Amino acid sequence: MRVLGVDPGLTRCGLGVVEGSPGRPLNLVAVDVVRTPADAELGHRLLAIETAIEEWVAAHRPDVVAVERVFSQHNVRTVMGTAQASGVATLVAARRGIPVVTHTPSEVKAAVSGSGQADKAQVAFMVTRLLRLDARPKPADASDALALAICQVWRGSAQNRLQAAVAAAGRGRR
Amino acid sequence: MRVLGVDPGLTRCGLGVVEGSPGRPLNLVAVDVVRTPADAELGHRLLAIETAIEEWVAAHRPDVVAVERVFSQHNVRTVMGTAQASGVATLVAARRGIPVVTHTPSEVKAAVSGSGQADKAQVAFMVTRLLRLDARPKPADASDALALAICQVWRGSAQNRLQAAVAAAGRGRR
Repeated sequence: MRVLGVDPGLTRCGLGVVEGSPGRPLNLVAVDVVRTPADAELGHRLLAIETAIEEWVAAHRPDVVAVERVFSQHNVRTVMGTAQASGVATLVAARRGIPVVTHTPSEVKAAVSGSGQADKAQVAFMVTRLLRLDARPKPADASDALALAICQVWRGSAQNRLQAAVAAAGRGRR
Repeated sequence: MRVLGVDPGLTRCGLGVVEGSPGRPLNLVAVDVVRTPADAELGHRLLAIETAIEEWVAAHRPDVVAVERVFSQHNVRTVMGTAQASGVATLVAARRGIPVVTHTPSEVKAAVSGSGQADKAQVAFMVTRLLRLDARPKPADASDALALAICQVWRGSAQNRLQAAVAAAGRGRR
């Protein structure tokens, strides 16, 4: 099971690919943060994010894309851009027939640290330990994208198999 | 000046193309509403909207795409999907180097009816009159998309020429 985790954002969009299955050690495949300049036009920012995610999906061939679920009660100034970046990730995955799942921040924190109220440092610490890395992935968006992918490997296995079957049946019909 | 107006939404996305210039009669080129089923996966809904807007841009070759500016204080349940649909419209336009402008609902209402507090019926009435149509475009999303396009024809002419020049310079550099 290979998962691309996406921590969506216009200024920084975290991407992390993790491979593993429940009960076995996890492996880091790739991690990065796509940055787009705040003074660029929205369309160009969304295009840059689309291009990056297209490249990652082509290079790493994830079985599932896990995107952080955006809540509109978060920071009102940034939430629209976050929703649009998450929409682009969802669109790229759908175009290739890859199932998309979403997890809330507290589901992700609970999955990797045992507490839905864990802070960023605690999540980064656990991501570093679970992937057996030498140093914490930085910035936080990179760490959060990996945490999302780990959450999906652990929580989503049964669910993924179902979604993959549905997606495969859908592809067969086209 | 040919403008594609987009009233973004997942369930109903209004598309309207208007041709004209300030001080001259306006012409309706095309109007429709893209619908996606509420029970479909988000990715498939965004793909359907992307495909429709791609087709409209290819068929009608607008000089500008005008998208309604989404506010996060609107209906919290639907605002994320609206932001994502508007992001898809913005992405499609950017991919083709077409300038994207946004107008708030009250800017649009003021442009077509003289009042930023006009109701839906008043906007539909003015759109019908301004485009010299036999009947009001329905549903409201279709009428709103046309109102957006009219607003842009009237408000955006000087601004558009600037943006088109910038976009053309950008294409020249690539």
